[in-house]
Amino acid sequence: MAFLNDHYLKLKAGYLFPEIGRRVKGFCEANPEAAQRLIRCGIGDVTEPLPPAAVAAMHRAVDEMAARETFKGYGPEQGYEWLRHAIAQNDFRDRGCEVADDEVFVSDGSKCDCGNILDVLGPKNKIAISDPVYPVYVDTNVMAGHTGEANAAGAYARLVYLPCRPANGFMPEPPKKHVDVIYLCSPNNPTGAAATREQLAAWVQYALDHKSLILFDAAYEAYITEPGLPHSIYELPGARECAIEFRSCSKNGGFTGVRCAFTVVPKTLRLATRSGEWHPLHPLWLRRMTTKFNGVSYLVQRGAEALYSPEGKAQIAGLIRHYLGNAEVLRQGALAAGLKVFGGVNAPYIWVRTPKNVTSWQAFDQILNEANVVITPGSGFGSKGEGYFRISAFNSRANAEEVARRLPALKW
Amino acid sequence: MAFLNDHYLKLKAGYLFPEIGRRVKGFCEANPEAAQRLIRCGIGDVTEPLPPAAVAAMHRAVDEMAARETFKGYGPEQGYEWLRHAIAQNDFRDRGCEVADDEVFVSDGSKCDCGNILDVLGPKNKIAISDPVYPVYVDTNVMAGHTGEANAAGAYARLVYLPCRPANGFMPEPPKKHVDVIYLCSPNNPTGAAATREQLAAWVQYALDHKSLILFDAAYEAYITEPGLPHSIYELPGARECAIEFRSCSKNGGFTGVRCAFTVVPKTLRLATRSGEWHPLHPLWLRRMTTKFNGVSYLVQRGAEALYSPEGKAQIAGLIRHYLGNAEVLRQGALAAGLKVFGGVNAPYIWVRTPKNVTSWQAFDQILNEANVVITPGSGFGSKGEGYFRISAFNSRANAEEVARRLPALKW
Repeated sequence: MAFLNDHYLKLKAGYLFPEIGRRVKGFCEANPEAAQRLIRCGIGDVTEPLPPAAVAAMHRAVDEMAARETFKGYGPEQGYEWLRHAIAQNDFRDRGCEVADDEVFVSDGSKCDCGNILDVLGPKNKIAISDPVYPVYVDTNVMAGHTGEANAAGAYARLVYLPCRPANGFMPEPPKKHVDVIYLCSPNNPTGAAATREQLAAWVQYALDHKSLILFDAAYEAYITEPGLPHSIYELPGARECAIEFRSCSKNGGFTGVRCAFTVVPKTLRLATRSGEWHPLHPLWLRRMTTKFNGVSYLVQRGAEALYSPEGKAQIAGLIRHYLGNAEVLRQGALAAGLKVFGGVNAPYIWVRTPKNVTSWQAFDQILNEANVVITPGSGFGSKGEGYFRISAFNSRANAEEVARRLPALKW
Repeated sequence: MAFLNDHYLKLKAGYLFPEIGRRVKGFCEANPEAAQRLIRCGIGDVTEPLPPAAVAAMHRAVDEMAARETFKGYGPEQGYEWLRHAIAQNDFRDRGCEVADDEVFVSDGSKCDCGNILDVLGPKNKIAISDPVYPVYVDTNVMAGHTGEANAAGAYARLVYLPCRPANGFMPEPPKKHVDVIYLCSPNNPTGAAATREQLAAWVQYALDHKSLILFDAAYEAYITEPGLPHSIYELPGARECAIEFRSCSKNGGFTGVRCAFTVVPKTLRLATRSGEWHPLHPLWLRRMTTKFNGVSYLVQRGAEALYSPEGKAQIAGLIRHYLGNAEVLRQGALAAGLKVFGGVNAPYIWVRTPKNVTSWQAFDQILNEANVVITPGSGFGSKGEGYFRISAFNSRANAEEVARRLPALKW
């Protein structure tokens, strides 16, 4: 008889955002009038139209597909060379990071890559994640059998949780004990914190000392505004020996519905076989991508390439200014409401302490019912997220201003 | 220290098509003049422009992304409802197969889905594949640790190989012994054979008797011309209890570079937990897709939807006629060359016996050198593919005719 993967049965009831979706749907059905004034600051999804440079490039690409002479079938699974080059040059080499074109793997999403990277990792790694954390890191490890069961608080056995609190600026310190694989996300989803050079340097040193692997998620890199903060982990010496970096076109170019991301796997990164031999990971990831993936749509790759043109860069800068402007408006609104506020300066997320020991989901329900605003409950990101909620700055300015007006009216 | 997935190190030297690419590149560099007349009938990649209905739909979708009011961010990971509905209605319900909209999962490729499906299967399944076989079925099982090492002939321990020969019409019979998971591909890549209703019925009966799972790859369904041949495994009673079906827009709509496919997981399909309880697989696959995937590009989904419009269907029919016309030309050319020929009637592939005990790779090199035509060596698909080669009909008519002229001139 055919067997399923039992590890899936360990997963908790639902991925966070589907659960939010269910509650919002219920609210809207029960309150059709309030539903009219609903403002969604929950899921971190962009709202503004695509950069015109990407639009023009995708129209041209569609036209190419309409003529035999310019039609494109299968492309290289790991991405077209012109896109890998544009990425390596603009995002890394122009900023002093040594990344070769063929160390860049173009994919259809950072979420996908964060999950798929486990394909090339062994089953015995001790995995460390932040708490709170982007739930995909946890769930994909549960699915892969890298954890035990969850306890009543939702924490999985065999995972090492690194608490993020105001005291450490919501960026975890390397643990005293040994771990093999560490997920770091900076600028952080959900807390909006961005790692300093010193914090990242400590992690790189830890990884080199322990021969560990850092999975560095920099999907929100474009939102870094403070000078001196690293934009890539490869700004740190030694990172090419211990780190993989995930990047995305979702939150800079607004590609959440278009789908393009990329992952950097340095050829100098080596991992151990079961018998303790060191082996480069790059050929394994290349093999994984060429065997289990067929490349990103040609239309989309042309759109992504256009993001690296002078016009594309200027248009992205405008989008980032817009969303960070919203973040500032929301931050001021939450402060005016007497709330304790973090993030929102180097990230499109505001991380807010709930008042009066209100739980995250209580805050979610109250803000939905009283202010008709959808936020994300902090506990959805882990036990240390309890007592917080996340407000997303992905919205129109008018909506951000309206949310900022509504927050102080909440009766906690 | 961080560990890699040792199973990858069991993989044989290279996925078939990269190896072909290397040989062709070497030939072209050494023979720049012959390279000018090279005709590629190797990789099964479409050559004709996209159906105009899809082109128009994708232009409209790009325009929607350019305006705030119509912009689309994240869509449902499993595909937009309108596309799932179009698929379930047109490809299944209109043909008498009971498939609900939410049993259709839209993805970026059948190759991806064929690999990713292993995420939700347990590690102890006994896996059966055809020989010859589409290499992705094998390699993804090797990567997942479902096999032992390969022997000198390239066969992996723990996999059950089902030989496909002229005697069984290149469609394997159910084995005497028990297997848990069976890959079937019809119309077949590489042999071009299409399963009869009786052959599929025998497999469904086997799967029901053994509580096995059939992974049915119907990426080439649109090429079936002979009446009475099943287009979907769900035409067979009982298949909803034992089969998953993979479909693609690559070979009908010419979407190899656009990227859209879909997988049907019936809600009535149950698999066993380790402890022997039966559990529906649908929620596991849904969880897999929502957690490790972010949906197909909105532009692409709109293009795929247009394939189901009356214009789209007519345009697809024209493309299929074109490629099957090529197949007939190539079939006649190979016959005129005195070769033994299979397939090419319900599939865009011709499966040719090499003469005089020439090996598949010898035939590859000879056809490349003498005829300047790229074919695919049969042995690349498994040991029982030795002594055969595959000619792809994906080409212009002029190229197919030219190949048909060149084949009889080969000096075997």
